[in-house]
Amino acid sequence: MTPVVPTPATSPTSTADAVAAARAAAPSLARTPLPARADRMRAAADALDAHATEIVALADTETHLGPARLTGELARTTGQLRLFADAVEEGSFLDVTIDHADPGATPVPRPDVRRMMRPIGPVAVFAASNFPLAFSVAGGDTASALAAGCPVVVKAHEGHPRLSDLVGRVLADVLPSGAIGVLHGRAAGRELVTDPAVRAVGFTGSEAGGRALYDLAAARPDPIPFYGELGSVNPVVVTPSAVATRGAAVAAGYVASYTQGLGQFCTKPGLLFLPAGHGLEPALVDAVRAVAPGPLLGEWIRSGFDAAAAALAALPGVRSLVPPVPGSENTAAPALLSMPAARFLAEPAAAQECFGPASLIVEYAHPAELLAALNTVPGALTATVHTQPGHDDDLVRAVLDVTTERAGRIILNGWPTGVAVTWAMHHGGPWPATTAPLHTSVGVAAIRRFLRPVAYQDVPAELLPEALRDGNPLGLPRRVDGVLAV
Amino acid sequence: MTPVVPTPATSPTSTADAVAAARAAAPSLARTPLPARADRMRAAADALDAHATEIVALADTETHLGPARLTGELARTTGQLRLFADAVEEGSFLDVTIDHADPGATPVPRPDVRRMMRPIGPVAVFAASNFPLAFSVAGGDTASALAAGCPVVVKAHEGHPRLSDLVGRVLADVLPSGAIGVLHGRAAGRELVTDPAVRAVGFTGSEAGGRALYDLAAARPDPIPFYGELGSVNPVVVTPSAVATRGAAVAAGYVASYTQGLGQFCTKPGLLFLPAGHGLEPALVDAVRAVAPGPLLGEWIRSGFDAAAAALAALPGVRSLVPPVPGSENTAAPALLSMPAARFLAEPAAAQECFGPASLIVEYAHPAELLAALNTVPGALTATVHTQPGHDDDLVRAVLDVTTERAGRIILNGWPTGVAVTWAMHHGGPWPATTAPLHTSVGVAAIRRFLRPVAYQDVPAELLPEALRDGNPLGLPRRVDGVLAV
Repeated sequence: MTPVVPTPATSPTSTADAVAAARAAAPSLARTPLPARADRMRAAADALDAHATEIVALADTETHLGPARLTGELARTTGQLRLFADAVEEGSFLDVTIDHADPGATPVPRPDVRRMMRPIGPVAVFAASNFPLAFSVAGGDTASALAAGCPVVVKAHEGHPRLSDLVGRVLADVLPSGAIGVLHGRAAGRELVTDPAVRAVGFTGSEAGGRALYDLAAARPDPIPFYGELGSVNPVVVTPSAVATRGAAVAAGYVASYTQGLGQFCTKPGLLFLPAGHGLEPALVDAVRAVAPGPLLGEWIRSGFDAAAAALAALPGVRSLVPPVPGSENTAAPALLSMPAARFLAEPAAAQECFGPASLIVEYAHPAELLAALNTVPGALTATVHTQPGHDDDLVRAVLDVTTERAGRIILNGWPTGVAVTWAMHHGGPWPATTAPLHTSVGVAAIRRFLRPVAYQDVPAELLPEALRDGNPLGLPRRVDGVLAV
Repeated sequence: MTPVVPTPATSPTSTADAVAAARAAAPSLARTPLPARADRMRAAADALDAHATEIVALADTETHLGPARLTGELARTTGQLRLFADAVEEGSFLDVTIDHADPGATPVPRPDVRRMMRPIGPVAVFAASNFPLAFSVAGGDTASALAAGCPVVVKAHEGHPRLSDLVGRVLADVLPSGAIGVLHGRAAGRELVTDPAVRAVGFTGSEAGGRALYDLAAARPDPIPFYGELGSVNPVVVTPSAVATRGAAVAAGYVASYTQGLGQFCTKPGLLFLPAGHGLEPALVDAVRAVAPGPLLGEWIRSGFDAAAAALAALPGVRSLVPPVPGSENTAAPALLSMPAARFLAEPAAAQECFGPASLIVEYAHPAELLAALNTVPGALTATVHTQPGHDDDLVRAVLDVTTERAGRIILNGWPTGVAVTWAMHHGGPWPATTAPLHTSVGVAAIRRFLRPVAYQDVPAELLPEALRDGNPLGLPRRVDGVLAV
C-alpha cells in the first residue's frame, strides 16, 4: 500500500479564518449576475478536466477505486457543475413570484409583493469517503451551494486528504477569493457546524457521524439546516413472476449491484426479498464466488465491514450462503446471507446498513409476510421491484404503496446503484436515509437546500433586485398574479 | 370577564388514537384526485362561513379580540382555504419533473426518471394564541397540510379551547374521517411531537415554547421537520429624508402599527430606528397616549407583557417616553421607550421581542451606527424602511443589504402588520423568527413544508402516478427534459 502522509488537522484559528473568508465573500457572490455565476462554474469544471490525469492518479492512490471508476466519477463531477450552471442561467431556481397590488382585495387591500430565492450564506460541506470526487470538495453539495450563490467551506474526508487539497486548489484558482475553503480534522468539522457565520450544512457519511453533527447543528443557539445523507439499506423485492421468467438474470444483476465498487455505494442493495422456494441459491452463490476480493477505501472501512458483516451473520435465523471472512489490511471479500422473513420481522438489527460487499436475502412465504417485512425497513434512498409485466400486479401495487412511503426513489426492473444527475433525480428519503426528507443531494433540485426566500413589499423598481422588476429584464420563468409563465 | 370552563386535557390514549386515525386516513387522502381535494377544502371554507356567527361570538368570548377583527380573520381563514384549493387544482405544487431515458448520455446512459411531490404524512399543528382562526385549527398550517394531502392533528391553544373544538367539529363534518383531530394540553402536545407516526410539525408561538418542542422533534430517534414561527422584533428604519418630509405621518403610522390589536401580532414593529434629533417625540407620545388601554388575549399574556416591558424599561440607557404601567386582569396600556443606538449596541436584551403594546425607539447618530445596530438585530419576519424617494439612496441601499440577510420580508414606506395571503408572500426568516428559514407559514408556498419528493425510475406507465404519465393527463405544469412548460 502507498504510505499515507498524515495531513495536519486544521487549527481552530485557521477554521475561523476560512469561515470569515467565506462570510466576506458571500455578498459579492450573491450579487454576481447569473450568467457570470454560471460561467465560473463552467470554468471550475474545465479546470478540473484540465487536471484530470493528476486528479485521477492521486484519487486512486488514496482510495484504491481504480482509474476507470475515478475517470467516470470525475466526468460526473464536472458534468454536474455544468448542468447546475445551465440551471443557474435558466433561473427557475429563483422561484420568482410577483403579486401586483390589489386595492379591491377582501377582507383588506393587498400590497405589491414580490418573492425570490436568495443565497442562504456560507455553507459547510462534509465530504464522503466513497465518492472522493462526486461527493467531495467539488461534489454535489459544493456545486449546489455555488449555484445558489453561497461560499463553501469543505471539511475534507480523512480518506483522501491530499486529493481534497488538490481539488480545492484547482477550484480556488478559478473562483473568487473565499468562495471555496478546505479544512482537515474532526475538530475543525465540529467548529464549522457551530460557527455562527455558517448558515447550512451538507453531509454525506455514516449514520453515527451524521447524527452527531446533526445534533450539534440542532443544539446551536440558532439551529441551522443540516442536510445529511446517512445510510440506506435499499430494499429490492423480487416477485414470483420475476423468479419464474428471469430468475437467473435477477440473481446476476443483484450480485453485480451489491458488489459493485465492493459495496461502497449509498445505494447498494442491502436487502433482497425473494419468494421462499426461489431456487436461485446456487446461481447466487456462484455469482458471489466469482467476485474477487479487492481493496476497500481503507483499513478503517475494512475493519468496520468485517465487524458489521460478522454481526449480521451471527443474528438468530441468518444463514451464511457465502460466509463473511475477515480481511487483512484494506482487502475484503463479498459475503451473502439469508434469513426467513418471519425471523427478519423479529430482528430489527437485520435491517441496518452494512457498508461494504455484503447483502441479506429475506425469503417471504406469502405476500402479507413480505409487506409486513417491508414495513419494518428503515427509511431508504431507494426501493426496487423486479417483476414480470402483466403478472403479480396486485402484489406489485401493494409493494409500491409501502415502499413509496419509505424511500426516495422507486426503481422497476433495474438496480439502485448508479444515480443519474438530472433535473428529475431525487436522492433522498426519510430518516435515516437523510436528515431532511424534503431535499435531494443529487440533481438540480439540490440547489434549493441553500436558498431562502425573501419577499419585497411595495419596493420601488429601482430598489428591487432585477429578477423581480416588471418587464422581466432577466428573462426568467416567473409566476405573476398567480399565473406561471416561461 | 367570562368565566372559562377548563377544557380537559387530552389523555395519552386519546392522543395516540387521534394520531392513529390520522395515520389510517393518510393513504386515502394522498390518493384523492386533486379536484376532489380542492373541493373538500372549499367545502371546509363554506362550512366555516356558514357557522360564522357562532364562531365569531365564541372567539370573542375566549380572546376579547372583538367581532370586527374576528370577522375579518374568519374571512382571511376561509379565503386562505379557497386560495390553497385553487393552488391544488393548478398543480405546480407537485413539482412534476420528467427526464426521459437517454441511452447516449455520458459517462453512463440515463434511465427514465420522473419526480413529483407526495404528502409527507400526518402533520401536528400547534395553534397560536393571537390568531384564534387564521393560525389555529383551520389556519394556515392546517390549510397547507390538507392541500399537500396530509391529515392533521391540532394541539389547540389553551387560550381558546372551546373555539378550537367548535372549528374542529365544523371541519370534521366535511372532511374524511381522520383528516382533522383536535387535542388539548401540553402533555398531549409533547406526545404529538414524539409520536412515531407524526411526520412534521407546524408551530406558532413563543421562542421558549417553540424551542422546547423543536428540541423534542430534533431528539427523536428519527428527527422530523419542525416548522416553527417563534418571535420577531421587526425593525423599522426611518431615514432623515422621511423625518424631514413626512415625520408626523411616520410617527402616527408607527404607533398605529405597534398598538394594533394591542401589539399582539408576530409582525408588530418592536424597534424603530430614528435619526437623532428627529423632533418627533411629542407627536409619538401624543399618539401613544391617545390609544386606550384594552384587553389582551388573557391574563397570562398581560402578566408576561408587564414583566417584559418593565425589564426593557429598566435596561441601562432606556428612557420611558410613555412608561409601562402594570395592568390588572387582562387589561394593558401601551408603552413607548427610547435609547441611543450606542447604548443599544451594548444591550442585546434590548433587541428581544416584547409581545404586547410596547416598542423601542433607537436613535442613531450617523449611518455607520445605524448599520452596526441593525447587524445585531436577531433574525426577523420583516424589516421596514421609511424614506423619501430620491433621497438617502446610499443609506437605503446599505440598510436593504443588511436587512435582506436578516429578515424574510422587506417593506418600503409601509408597515409590517398585515400579511397578505397570496402566491408571493413570504412569512418566515432566520432564527429566531422561524426554525426553518427555507419556508413560509403564510401564502401558497406554505404547502411545500408538508411534501416530500419521490422519483420513479423506469416505472411503466400503468404503475406510475397519473401526474407523471406521458401525455400529461392531469394537465399539470411540468418540466420535461429540462424544459418547463405550462
